[in-house]
Amino acid sequence: MIDKEHLHAFFYPETVAVIGASATPGKVGHTIVANMIGAGYKGKLYPVNPKASEIEGLPVVNDIAGLPPGLDLGVISVPRQFVLPSMEALAERGTKAAIIITAGFKEVGREGYELEREIIELCERTGMALLGPNCLGMINTAVGVNASFATGQPKPGSIAFFSQSGALCVAILDWALGENIGFSKFVSLGNKAVLDEADMLDYLNRDRDTSVILGYVENVEHGDAFLEAARRTCLNKPVIMIKSGTTAAGAKAASSHTGAIAGSDQTYTAAFHQSGVIRVGDVATLFNLAQAFSSQPLPKGPNLAVVTNSGGPGILTADTADRSSLTMAALSQRTIQRLQDFLPSYAAFYNPVDIIGDADATRYRKAVDVVADDPMVHAILVLLTPTATVQIEETAEALIHTARRSGKPVFACFMGKTRVAKARDMLMEAGIPCYAFPEAAVRSIEAMYKYYIWKHRPESEYAPVERDLEQAAKVIREHERRSQPEIVEFEAQQVLRAYHLPTPATTLARSSDEAVAAAEEIGYPVVLKIASPDISHKSDVGGVKVNLQDAGEVMAAFKDITARAQRMRREAYIAGCLVQEMAPAGVKEVIIGFKRDDQFGPMLMFGLGGIYVEIMKDIAFKLAPLSRRDAFEIVREIRSYMLLKGLKGEPPVNFAALEDIILTMSQLALDFPQVLEAEFNPVLVNNERAIVADVRMTLRLKDQ
Amino acid sequence: MIDKEHLHAFFYPETVAVIGASATPGKVGHTIVANMIGAGYKGKLYPVNPKASEIEGLPVVNDIAGLPPGLDLGVISVPRQFVLPSMEALAERGTKAAIIITAGFKEVGREGYELEREIIELCERTGMALLGPNCLGMINTAVGVNASFATGQPKPGSIAFFSQSGALCVAILDWALGENIGFSKFVSLGNKAVLDEADMLDYLNRDRDTSVILGYVENVEHGDAFLEAARRTCLNKPVIMIKSGTTAAGAKAASSHTGAIAGSDQTYTAAFHQSGVIRVGDVATLFNLAQAFSSQPLPKGPNLAVVTNSGGPGILTADTADRSSLTMAALSQRTIQRLQDFLPSYAAFYNPVDIIGDADATRYRKAVDVVADDPMVHAILVLLTPTATVQIEETAEALIHTARRSGKPVFACFMGKTRVAKARDMLMEAGIPCYAFPEAAVRSIEAMYKYYIWKHRPESEYAPVERDLEQAAKVIREHERRSQPEIVEFEAQQVLRAYHLPTPATTLARSSDEAVAAAEEIGYPVVLKIASPDISHKSDVGGVKVNLQDAGEVMAAFKDITARAQRMRREAYIAGCLVQEMAPAGVKEVIIGFKRDDQFGPMLMFGLGGIYVEIMKDIAFKLAPLSRRDAFEIVREIRSYMLLKGLKGEPPVNFAALEDIILTMSQLALDFPQVLEAEFNPVLVNNERAIVADVRMTLRLKDQ
Repeated sequence: MIDKEHLHAFFYPETVAVIGASATPGKVGHTIVANMIGAGYKGKLYPVNPKASEIEGLPVVNDIAGLPPGLDLGVISVPRQFVLPSMEALAERGTKAAIIITAGFKEVGREGYELEREIIELCERTGMALLGPNCLGMINTAVGVNASFATGQPKPGSIAFFSQSGALCVAILDWALGENIGFSKFVSLGNKAVLDEADMLDYLNRDRDTSVILGYVENVEHGDAFLEAARRTCLNKPVIMIKSGTTAAGAKAASSHTGAIAGSDQTYTAAFHQSGVIRVGDVATLFNLAQAFSSQPLPKGPNLAVVTNSGGPGILTADTADRSSLTMAALSQRTIQRLQDFLPSYAAFYNPVDIIGDADATRYRKAVDVVADDPMVHAILVLLTPTATVQIEETAEALIHTARRSGKPVFACFMGKTRVAKARDMLMEAGIPCYAFPEAAVRSIEAMYKYYIWKHRPESEYAPVERDLEQAAKVIREHERRSQPEIVEFEAQQVLRAYHLPTPATTLARSSDEAVAAAEEIGYPVVLKIASPDISHKSDVGGVKVNLQDAGEVMAAFKDITARAQRMRREAYIAGCLVQEMAPAGVKEVIIGFKRDDQFGPMLMFGLGGIYVEIMKDIAFKLAPLSRRDAFEIVREIRSYMLLKGLKGEPPVNFAALEDIILTMSQLALDFPQVLEAEFNPVLVNNERAIVADVRMTLRLKDQ
Repeated sequence: MIDKEHLHAFFYPETVAVIGASATPGKVGHTIVANMIGAGYKGKLYPVNPKASEIEGLPVVNDIAGLPPGLDLGVISVPRQFVLPSMEALAERGTKAAIIITAGFKEVGREGYELEREIIELCERTGMALLGPNCLGMINTAVGVNASFATGQPKPGSIAFFSQSGALCVAILDWALGENIGFSKFVSLGNKAVLDEADMLDYLNRDRDTSVILGYVENVEHGDAFLEAARRTCLNKPVIMIKSGTTAAGAKAASSHTGAIAGSDQTYTAAFHQSGVIRVGDVATLFNLAQAFSSQPLPKGPNLAVVTNSGGPGILTADTADRSSLTMAALSQRTIQRLQDFLPSYAAFYNPVDIIGDADATRYRKAVDVVADDPMVHAILVLLTPTATVQIEETAEALIHTARRSGKPVFACFMGKTRVAKARDMLMEAGIPCYAFPEAAVRSIEAMYKYYIWKHRPESEYAPVERDLEQAAKVIREHERRSQPEIVEFEAQQVLRAYHLPTPATTLARSSDEAVAAAEEIGYPVVLKIASPDISHKSDVGGVKVNLQDAGEVMAAFKDITARAQRMRREAYIAGCLVQEMAPAGVKEVIIGFKRDDQFGPMLMFGLGGIYVEIMKDIAFKLAPLSRRDAFEIVREIRSYMLLKGLKGEPPVNFAALEDIILTMSQLALDFPQVLEAEFNPVLVNNERAIVADVRMTLRLKDQ
């Protein structure tokens, strides 16, 4: 965890030194100094250069040793071999934070990696906050800090942005200048030697200048820290992120780029989803959402009302809304009557409300007012086609006025470009997101509604699962001792028992009489299996007989199985037979498993057995620990959920029993970090109960 | 079919009259005259107005009767009640084409609908080509015709656009002016009383000024004409369309808008796909594709090479490419060596080729030249991040030069907005599509590659299916005579036989001896079913016995079935028993069916039986007639195709046999328009053969 005071010094420095400052325009060391001055920095700025005497009108300090002690921020842009000495000298002076602009570290191979390690250790020793290396720098518009070599100063705003890619920072900054988008903080993370996404989230969560956080990541190294920071932050303000390098080709490109190893896309999807991070696929969407979130209240429900002066765009909007989580609001009778009071008779009074091509600003305002008054309307989208008669700017004015008093989120889509340009600027300036076409508008409103739902869902419950930890640990320790990574069969069953998991009723019978007694106890039909530590493939020796219906059949089967086994495996010790209950009628097979991700820990999976998981890839994933609601959700997220719910009058399976087993699997994954993966397969479930019929676990052995 | 000469007169009029011309600026009748003049129209323009004497410097004709005979185009903008008389007067003068701007026809209800019918009949009688009513008009930039009341003149270009929504025309025109996009033809279709999408496609297909056709439709009324026109056109030039009103909410909005009834989205998807139309979901994509298609050659394969000066955008591009039909090209050893010759050692030499942030225009040019030389590269995307050192305009210059000589499609993504604005204009002007972010670029290239594949696939073969038409017709006629819409059981089997479809071997046995003889002939095991025209639910009387293994079982079953039937249904005539072969081992059940769409005719469906179709909605659709390749594709388009291919060493099913049945179903659908829907369910298929085990057909009776 980074020292809060040092992080504050990083973002709000009162003294800044630029190590490697240059008097030559075009050089990075010059751009940084010029950017600081251009941003209107009010603190003390020290250019450091061994030779120069003045840079951009500022006196130059020739040596870090000549800087005042207790400096807030040092920005380092010197050749690689001088970076570590510079860091040491800064540390010597008690500097609180640093930015290393210089590249050539972890991303270029072994030598750079070692150098970066040394810098990290220095920071760990001294508590210095460090951004980079290999980054563009940092901008804080609130206090005129532009400690970067970016071209162009962003204007102040409430959107914060951090990015693992410096190039994306450059591109987005240029784009935002053109789109008139402002930023609170703008951070290029570079190699993330010390400060990473989790630190940014934690800081920006508390930052009063920031209302929306945007991020671009190629990989997350510390999954736990990220998840915790993201969860905390998302409860407070929206976090919208792009995760790249998610495909095979992308991951290949990423690993050559920063040496980062991207985890599986499924893991990131689960991590973002569970922590409330809104994930988008492209930069345009990132900013569409940012503008919506930063300027309008969240819709408190899914009902969208559309007011339009033309039919086609209204249809496109209804189409897009219908494909989203939103609903086209059904307007109340009263609302429709109020609309009829002033709209021409050939208008369309239900939703989309088509106020016709000759609508003036007043008609727009009245229609939006009436629609916004309808208690069943949660968000309003106003479409305007620049027909010859429409009053474009006046309508924008009217909307701005109306939106303020409605208290509901209002969005605009002024179609086109040239004739609506001025109105669009007016709307954006007034905090009404305005789009050129309806699709982007609907997608933004949907994202806000989904975030509203996420933010207001009840708190997650993580109930402890009762278990006999020592009993399970014994089995696992024993396998570790024997360097045996696979836990199967009898020993795996012991782990199930330690977790009080329901398994098929099983009794060891040493004689045919005992077998019959056990079968009567369990109830017919039963299964008999040879019980011998020396016979692993039971079927090979005819060691399994299923569907035995009565005492006679059980007795015969016992004799047959044991005799045959003795004959075929003379050396084997035969303990007798296991008498096991048969799978009940109407049973379905599901698979519950987990795999441990290097970054994010255990990821649970759930799916129907057979072709559903293997062929249809119909699997749901969640990261452990799972809450009771997570378990509820994971069984309902698969496409084949309908089969569990029951078709054609069939009763539903016992979902609670399934969810219990899923929560137990989550607990098991957390209890034993040395278990790499585990699978309950199949779990048999019908409308009465669920039992774990087979299990397999794989350990990571210490010497591996 | 519209007279070609009249259609030519419509688009290239040498004489134009504006009926309802006005001297008052802001009035539609004035805007049209002003637009014609503003567009630089060189032909004869006649404003028609009963009272005025001069409009915009032109002498006014007071009456249509005063116009010269044989006029090319009349544009009508008069109150609704004067529209039909105006049309009649124009027809009287032998006018070749007309545009009705006036609204208030089909879209407003019964009265308007009747009026529109009268106008249509007039056009049918006189052969006049008619656009509208209820439209914005038409623009042909090639000859300075702007017969519309749009605001703003589009510049000439090679993109044609037609739209059912006038509002979308307005919005897109305004947007295109801002984006500097030119058009060849720009048509607002309105109510499509006479000219519709099919006419546009046919005309624009032959239009030399048009290289890409864009369309927006809410519904297609004449599916056959559309399909034919689209197929022909797409073989020649790309057609990119938006179909709206595809969801329930959208369809509801559409039907209130134009009175159009949108067909099912699946039908449109199949229609567009089979005719080669590229379907997009939003306006931004429509124009992204239009720019790509109108300026670059098609990629001749899927291999994309990326040259970039930064890592992050390269990764985003690789991600997007990996999720598309494109592949990140594997560069040849020789290409990599040639890159190593001049790139810095820390560049990335495989694809994406990262030429590093300090790349100048020369390095860009060399890298693109080398990559384009690689025979395995089919398309090149050049990414530029506006770093401090990059030469933005010079790089654009270099690209323009290189792209011309490479002969391969080259695309640019100059990230950002302000600093790259000039370069982007230069690129666009030179015909290199330039995007602000990589995702849109990749999607455009993918669409071009997919179109290349579609365009170059072998011609479709529509082989006739052998059948006994008269035999099938007899069954259908008999049902029509009896007003019995459902064809099932024995009579449905007769239809199957008429189409030579494989059915389970079945013999009618009148005695138990005959039954045994039949069983020996068919081969055990067999099924016995009661044969009686008076017993429809066979199982209810215990009339079915399956899996009979030998003569004894067959004999006993025959006696049991017939005796029981006689006892339970004393009045029934018992013909004996049907002896039928059992479904062979390893058999899979599939469903082959069709439904007749009002606009597009029979739509075939294919899917696996049981939960796959019903629960997983795993169904593929194609419109009849199906070619041999369509049949090949439809069985492979379902997600559960893997099950037919065979899991775990299982042999694949006999696909050819399945495809034959599908083609026969297609033939049946074409042969009998009165069959509304039919279903072969199940069709049993294993690796040897496929048989139709059951069938059901529904007729549209004439009096319904």
